[in-house]
Amino acid sequence: MPGKKYSEQHRVVYYDTDLTGRLNVGKLGDILMLVSNDQSNDLGVSLQNMKKAGLGWVVTQHVLTVDRMPRVGEELTITTQATSYNRYFCYRDFFVQDQSGKQVAKMHSVFVMMDLKQRKMVRLVDEFINPYSADYTTKIERLPQPQMQGEVTEHNERTYRVRYTDIDINRHVNNIHYIDWMVDALDKDFLSQHDLVSLNIVYKKEVAYGDTVHSQVAKNGLVTYHEIINDDAISCVAECHWQPVKED
Amino acid sequence: MPGKKYSEQHRVVYYDTDLTGRLNVGKLGDILMLVSNDQSNDLGVSLQNMKKAGLGWVVTQHVLTVDRMPRVGEELTITTQATSYNRYFCYRDFFVQDQSGKQVAKMHSVFVMMDLKQRKMVRLVDEFINPYSADYTTKIERLPQPQMQGEVTEHNERTYRVRYTDIDINRHVNNIHYIDWMVDALDKDFLSQHDLVSLNIVYKKEVAYGDTVHSQVAKNGLVTYHEIINDDAISCVAECHWQPVKED
Repeated sequence: MPGKKYSEQHRVVYYDTDLTGRLNVGKLGDILMLVSNDQSNDLGVSLQNMKKAGLGWVVTQHVLTVDRMPRVGEELTITTQATSYNRYFCYRDFFVQDQSGKQVAKMHSVFVMMDLKQRKMVRLVDEFINPYSADYTTKIERLPQPQMQGEVTEHNERTYRVRYTDIDINRHVNNIHYIDWMVDALDKDFLSQHDLVSLNIVYKKEVAYGDTVHSQVAKNGLVTYHEIINDDAISCVAECHWQPVKED
Repeated sequence: MPGKKYSEQHRVVYYDTDLTGRLNVGKLGDILMLVSNDQSNDLGVSLQNMKKAGLGWVVTQHVLTVDRMPRVGEELTITTQATSYNRYFCYRDFFVQDQSGKQVAKMHSVFVMMDLKQRKMVRLVDEFINPYSADYTTKIERLPQPQMQGEVTEHNERTYRVRYTDIDINRHVNNIHYIDWMVDALDKDFLSQHDLVSLNIVYKKEVAYGDTVHSQVAKNGLVTYHEIINDDAISCVAECHWQPVKED
């Protein structure tokens, strides 16, 4: 049986949305991460308790599917559940429903446990895993990896210096901000005229305050492939699928 | 008698805060603007209704005083009230209280009405002013203007390209993002070791998507003076006062 479910509400407010009034994808990511955080607190395995043990969670992959990007003023219900885990990886699902109970988005995420001092991945520690009641499995999921699909017809690159407000309480760059850099590398006309259908993002290497990163995008019609480059190393890659905006 | 009061709650969550766990000042601004927006909707004078009449609100000045910057996890009560207005200017107060009812911050703001087509300030329109029940006055407030105090001992400048996520549903740069640019021009050590005591910000000229702005800061001890420069014109100025962080 998969683990305990946890739900909470979120109202989409103007500063969560873009110029079209739709929720920003980065903001959606922030909200989902908050809900999993809140579940951890609810189960007594807060980040503070983990920190005391010298441990922290790191996301290695998010696979997001969007049926309809919520709009300003909507009341969302977000549900999360740790589904299964093996020696090193935890798998977690997120479901986003609108007021009528219809699913508007879902996400599947992979988390690993990190030794905060050595900045190295460690075997999952029972004390911090058991409260979620997820299934233990020997299986390691083989999720699709982001890749460029087909021929590249357009390229773009933008540069970002990591800002003070990009750093969170864990003193590293909030991993959702990579999504903002990726999205912003696309142009305004494309973004305002297209809806995100899916995002598959894989994190490879941390970025620090003051670093300068390059957000590169290659486009083939409605598919975009993204890389965040820091000091000639790839920090993060993603594949996005888009569709033309459907008028309400 | 000053106008109707309106209150709502806000929980400070991790993505509202900086690496010290304190609420970001730009985020505090976003939250306060949301509350005044919600009051307008509650009174039936929503931005949508104003837009139909070709009108919108523009902020010209915020004077923020911080007693204690709230921390992650706190439940805040935010109250707003349109206090008075004259032919062209509306004055509004904001109060932020913590769970024990103690005030942690307050803000006084000046709004003008804009003709959206001509991008010009117009005389306040009764239909959109009366519902707030603020006092009419012939007086124009003389609020202090931001200025450099004393001798400049340090200078810094950073450059920002206006991003897709900086643009809001009104299709111009969310004016709170100017505060983010101002704050980020200060260095991380100063920001993490100092608390904001006050911010006085005056908006002079709009910034558009794709513009490159320069955030300049001059410092004299615990006072900082900020300018946002766009195409050699000053878009925005601010004066901030700080104090060393008091340990909890």
